Amino acid sequence: MRNYKTQMEAARMGIITPQMEEVAKKEYRTPEEIRALVETGQVAIPANKNHRCLKPEGVGSMLRTKINVNLGVSRDCKDYEGEMEKVMAAVHMGAEAIMDLSSHGNTQPFRRTLTSQCPAMIGTVPIYDSVIHYQRDLATLSAKDFIDVVRLHAQDGVDFVTLHCGITRKTIEQIKMHKRKMNIVSRGGSLVFAWMSMTGEENPFYEYYDEILEICREYDVTVSLGDACRPGCIEDATDVCQIEELVRLGELTKRAWEKDVQVMVEGPGHMPMDEIAANMKVQQKICMGAPFYVLGPLVTDIAPGYDHITSAIGGAIAAQHGAAFLCYVTPAEHLALPNVEDVKQGIVASKIAAHAADIAKKIPHATDVDHKMAEARKSFDWEMQWECAIDPDTAKKIHDNRAPEYDDTCSMCGKFCAVRSMNKALSGEYIDILG
Amino acid sequence: MRNYKTQMEAARMGIITPQMEEVAKKEYRTPEEIRALVETGQVAIPANKNHRCLKPEGVGSMLRTKINVNLGVSRDCKDYEGEMEKVMAAVHMGAEAIMDLSSHGNTQPFRRTLTSQCPAMIGTVPIYDSVIHYQRDLATLSAKDFIDVVRLHAQDGVDFVTLHCGITRKTIEQIKMHKRKMNIVSRGGSLVFAWMSMTGEENPFYEYYDEILEICREYDVTVSLGDACRPGCIEDATDVCQIEELVRLGELTKRAWEKDVQVMVEGPGHMPMDEIAANMKVQQKICMGAPFYVLGPLVTDIAPGYDHITSAIGGAIAAQHGAAFLCYVTPAEHLALPNVEDVKQGIVASKIAAHAADIAKKIPHATDVDHKMAEARKSFDWEMQWECAIDPDTAKKIHDNRAPEYDDTCSMCGKFCAVRSMNKALSGEYIDILG
Repeated sequence: MRNYKTQMEAARMGIITPQMEEVAKKEYRTPEEIRALVETGQVAIPANKNHRCLKPEGVGSMLRTKINVNLGVSRDCKDYEGEMEKVMAAVHMGAEAIMDLSSHGNTQPFRRTLTSQCPAMIGTVPIYDSVIHYQRDLATLSAKDFIDVVRLHAQDGVDFVTLHCGITRKTIEQIKMHKRKMNIVSRGGSLVFAWMSMTGEENPFYEYYDEILEICREYDVTVSLGDACRPGCIEDATDVCQIEELVRLGELTKRAWEKDVQVMVEGPGHMPMDEIAANMKVQQKICMGAPFYVLGPLVTDIAPGYDHITSAIGGAIAAQHGAAFLCYVTPAEHLALPNVEDVKQGIVASKIAAHAADIAKKIPHATDVDHKMAEARKSFDWEMQWECAIDPDTAKKIHDNRAPEYDDTCSMCGKFCAVRSMNKALSGEYIDILG
Repeated sequence: MRNYKTQMEAARMGIITPQMEEVAKKEYRTPEEIRALVETGQVAIPANKNHRCLKPEGVGSMLRTKINVNLGVSRDCKDYEGEMEKVMAAVHMGAEAIMDLSSHGNTQPFRRTLTSQCPAMIGTVPIYDSVIHYQRDLATLSAKDFIDVVRLHAQDGVDFVTLHCGITRKTIEQIKMHKRKMNIVSRGGSLVFAWMSMTGEENPFYEYYDEILEICREYDVTVSLGDACRPGCIEDATDVCQIEELVRLGELTKRAWEKDVQVMVEGPGHMPMDEIAANMKVQQKICMGAPFYVLGPLVTDIAPGYDHITSAIGGAIAAQHGAAFLCYVTPAEHLALPNVEDVKQGIVASKIAAHAADIAKKIPHATDVDHKMAEARKSFDWEMQWECAIDPDTAKKIHDNRAPEYDDTCSMCGKFCAVRSMNKALSGEYIDILG
């Protein structure tokens, strides 16, 4: 029997948990270093005590940047087994977290399958599930109903829950007054806003925050503080709605830590590139170094069909400047439910952004695989190149389908290949170019 | 008859050319502002006097970021008409420049077709064409042979030529001594290196630079100073080989400007994100603000199949910090000759990077289209969304193929759509979520 409730409580008791040991190994750190970072909330290890197959990961700006993949059953995709296959494929491709955003049918069996079979961290957004769980429309639900769903998810083994605690009745006035271009584009945030508008009551996730923290403490569920006011277009970025909510998220972070509950803070959104570093800095100060979990940022609004790229640009910059955790964005963002290929494209783009940031942040051993790739390129060792590639199958297919005319080249440059010319020149060989 | 040889000479004579007028209109600047920028070399307007169908563009860090698309006939793709169709498609998609890297067959007719039909700037790398033009192997060519090919391209109406003038015999020793991981990965640079190795002679593009400048002055060909030592892996980035060559490119920039010849300077390459801003700053100082033309930078080595994304990340950051011109990189980079789909993916990724940087740099009116897109999203005006999109066809296809169940949503979120909920909440309507 463990004598602590949460990783943070253990850290404060000076205990190095098995989860800390495992994270330390993955991150080339000592267990004591990880413990100290968990103690002060700089690293979260989302690890529900009921998620027994979890291979834990640490989330923190000084560790490898992690990525999350959103999946789940919906009205347009009701195939539970198919969705579970997508989950395992995502984990195989390197996703450290899966958020189950199921919005249709009987959600609990799928959630329980996740926490009993999936080794990645599992996150949910309980307010999405509330309507589905009770099969009643939003306005009819009570504050207690919402909290009961949080408890249900905690019992089911969910490692982190997104809760939009940062908006209050004051936000309603502020949104109306400030005339944001896109108002609220956070789904969960808009549901809380809608519920408050229709019932006239205060945000239950804010009003009953202490009760929610007790539940999270009991199961060691990490609170992921949702940013209802994340900007939905570049014009809304870094505006007063966003920053005021961030200030509230800082206060809520402190309250969670007082109860040994681990915290992540969610962030933008759509944002011009030149505002990203400043946003990361402000979040780190206001939220006292709590790990920052960003959706994007998307650096332009005009690339539907390619928002995995706009968010890879923003995500890489965000992670370089302090974000710890990137939510993937797929090419179908703003347009449709992502299909299998979209999911893959989204994962690869996020992994690229995360890895590029890890290189820039000088995360221990991050560049090992890059150096191995460079060696492989120099020696035309294609097998080793596939081994080092983020997506070996795609790389190999492009290469093999357009086979080179000469063995020591590829079809891109043929005998104009610079690597070939240099290898020959440096070993004093004659260099034939004319094919 | 115009009484000046080059745009730069005209600017120095106080003349506002038709090209400056046109660039001024496109950039929301006064003609006098553009003239002053051309005078000091901060903006280049590559515009060969024999390229009569050119719609001129200005290249400079304070103007919209431009992109280049590499095309051309090769051993594996000999279809001249098909290649010309690709060129026009690239221009239609927003490429401001086409580099003709043809490496097979009779190259002159294709080049002349380009400069008589294509409104985009045309660039070439004469050393690629030398072997092909003479149909003799590299070692048998003389310095004069190379220079004659530069003259040929100038006469044919090419707007800018990449010349690897910055490496010398000293570079051979330096490359051997410094033990770079990837040595030289610039194709043209490796050819110059190979030629020097085999002949024992000095780099002809360096030795006869003054003669070359006379040719460029005569036709107003902009010299694009090639970076032979651009890093080919992140480990080689910002090393002494790269920076020493940059110093030489700065000297060569000055010599060109002394003869009123316009200059662009080519840059990296593979590079960790955290080194990009510093590189841009150093280039701007050393090359006195000459427009920087970058290939990438690719921010990791391990993403073959996705290097349009690694370079979109690096290119966006580079352009934000001063690069003026991005060379596209396709998913086939490092693997194979790009096909039509690769070319498209490469163009879109580059356009995203360029536009994101323009937003960050606060280029006049850059955000107009983003704001229009946000309005369209808020009002579910899908037609307007396609109008604002970088690639309308792709966006529309994703949306239409997965049609929404409800008119005022898309299949991504269904009735959970935040925009829908907020529109209803703010107009006091009842919000139904349960579908």
